[in-house]
Amino acid sequence: MTASTRLGFEVLGQDAHCHARRGRLLTRHGPVETPVFMPVGTQATVKAVTPAQLHELGAEILLANTYHLYLRPGTEVIAALGGLHRMMGWDRAILTDSGGFQVFSLREIAKIEEHGVTFASHLDGSRHLLTPEKSIEIQEVLGSDVVMAFDHCPPAGASQADLRAAMERTERWARRCIDARGRDDYQLFGIVQGGVDLALRRASLAGLTALPFDGYALGGLSVGETREATWATIAAIAPELPRDKARYLMGVGTPEDLLVSVGHGVDMFDCVLPTRNARNGRLLTATGDINIRNHQYRLDDRPIEEGCGCYTCRNFSRGYLRHLSKADEILASTLASLHNLHLLIDLMRAARRALDEGNFTAFRDDALARRGIRP
Amino acid sequence: MTASTRLGFEVLGQDAHCHARRGRLLTRHGPVETPVFMPVGTQATVKAVTPAQLHELGAEILLANTYHLYLRPGTEVIAALGGLHRMMGWDRAILTDSGGFQVFSLREIAKIEEHGVTFASHLDGSRHLLTPEKSIEIQEVLGSDVVMAFDHCPPAGASQADLRAAMERTERWARRCIDARGRDDYQLFGIVQGGVDLALRRASLAGLTALPFDGYALGGLSVGETREATWATIAAIAPELPRDKARYLMGVGTPEDLLVSVGHGVDMFDCVLPTRNARNGRLLTATGDINIRNHQYRLDDRPIEEGCGCYTCRNFSRGYLRHLSKADEILASTLASLHNLHLLIDLMRAARRALDEGNFTAFRDDALARRGIRP
Repeated sequence: MTASTRLGFEVLGQDAHCHARRGRLLTRHGPVETPVFMPVGTQATVKAVTPAQLHELGAEILLANTYHLYLRPGTEVIAALGGLHRMMGWDRAILTDSGGFQVFSLREIAKIEEHGVTFASHLDGSRHLLTPEKSIEIQEVLGSDVVMAFDHCPPAGASQADLRAAMERTERWARRCIDARGRDDYQLFGIVQGGVDLALRRASLAGLTALPFDGYALGGLSVGETREATWATIAAIAPELPRDKARYLMGVGTPEDLLVSVGHGVDMFDCVLPTRNARNGRLLTATGDINIRNHQYRLDDRPIEEGCGCYTCRNFSRGYLRHLSKADEILASTLASLHNLHLLIDLMRAARRALDEGNFTAFRDDALARRGIRP
Repeated sequence: MTASTRLGFEVLGQDAHCHARRGRLLTRHGPVETPVFMPVGTQATVKAVTPAQLHELGAEILLANTYHLYLRPGTEVIAALGGLHRMMGWDRAILTDSGGFQVFSLREIAKIEEHGVTFASHLDGSRHLLTPEKSIEIQEVLGSDVVMAFDHCPPAGASQADLRAAMERTERWARRCIDARGRDDYQLFGIVQGGVDLALRRASLAGLTALPFDGYALGGLSVGETREATWATIAAIAPELPRDKARYLMGVGTPEDLLVSVGHGVDMFDCVLPTRNARNGRLLTATGDINIRNHQYRLDDRPIEEGCGCYTCRNFSRGYLRHLSKADEILASTLASLHNLHLLIDLMRAARRALDEGNFTAFRDDALARRGIRP
């Protein structure tokens, strides 16, 4: 990082009719234009896709998972291989989660204490302790551009008391993350918890915004609650996140989720579903999802979506993709992942253009209508 | 094909010290500079690699398998999707095998008669009949640039009587393939059989060269016999194949096999091992093969091979490739396949340059010595 590199978030424009904004996240690995969808590279690779292909897609930031990378290959390896960027051959920005979401999803075998969480590795059962301090330390070794605070992520359907306890612990842990920070060449984001309870969300937000975070995320959504409850929570809380800092909605990623949430002022998104679904033959289109393995595509010489500019749609037919998928060919996963990632990255590119041109709400409502959603 | 497109094979240069030659195969999908290694795309895809990546590797011709494509997706689908080239998004040359090798590898369930071979599909057990006429018909639907005659491929260790019977049947079937030919926009190659028996090989060659084939292949090698026997057969027979036509050694593909065989006058090679081994973490280098999953590469920040110009070596370390392979990531297969294919394609590029510059034997002997082979 040169002395002149400024980190942070700039609001470039505010829509006149809704909370949507055009922004730019400044990192030491270049700027990230927002709103943005971040492909997920759990194990230091976006599954089935090369960094060159991610560049071609226009990706400016990826997400990687601290929990997985800590267990395999481990921080010793990642440090020896020059940090996460150099190891995975990615020279643009990387956001890392804190590991909280993963260890809490192991909760049958996790021991949760105020100090941290003891858990058994899903790989070999070995026991590990993750604390706020440890999570920050790992993410600093990874060399992340955006580090997430270690949070207590309760399950959907948790009791009001459990939600409150998790929210309050998240705030105490957030202070410890701030204190554990050892460098200033990255941005540290706090995570607002509280489930779909707006009072708890607002209490969480009040506590976290009193701390010097560089950005704020909404965590604990899309974990089993209804879409109506997710959207209502986003609608109420996203606009209340600090206006001058980046707003990140964690783990939420259908086209309609993105369109609606941008309207409420969210800047950043990630989700594994576009790539996971791709590997199962489930493809996104502007008018809905299709399963490419269906018999109806057997002789279909058209691309997944007419007019789509992705490598897959420019070169290959539905019939060929169906063949590859039925034959369990690796290329099926690659081509489907490229298409699904392109759709979401391009949707956010179109949203930015609409914001720049002052017609975001019309763009959003039209795109939602094509997906069958009447807001 | 325009009226001016000439198909065939040109000998551009003959080495002064051995049988090696520089050549060019002319197809309606462009020229193929020889000697050449052809990546294998069994099911209409080179596994884990996109056509764009194959272009970047400098591949000018691929091999696809008639047996597999006939069973799945089937000729109805391939015809509806515009033929094999258009379906798989590959605009350069394609060679298709005849299906003979595959159906004879199913021989426990195949019924071999003079008319043809009845076999049960490895996919669903359904029964099919493949004949010389049917093989040519399928390959014409595929739109292959180089069509292989349907041959009787005996196993290694077959008796002298069985070898002779298979060789004689191959010649009778070769005449039927010539007669079945319905178009002239492709080249049709005959396949010399006879195992490692030189007298049988010469009898096969005499019979086939009396027929108007556009090129000749050595089949039935590398099917279980010793490497010494393979090489001795190639050394004796390859130089006796017609000089003015392309010479193709089927299914043989280590770096040393290619170097030795080019010296005996072979022009074309294919082998699944570079990509199959890649998917198991076995990587080719100029000095030998390595298993990237070994513990010794855990912290190794070097590329697979210093100085290698492939995408993988330009961007990724052994330690990262080991991580991807241990984590069963699809990217491990892609990056390893790109490297192994690059090594063989580039080896043949270097051989062509050496032939152009008149120093092939020195190049060959040096490259063989680096692989630990003293000829």
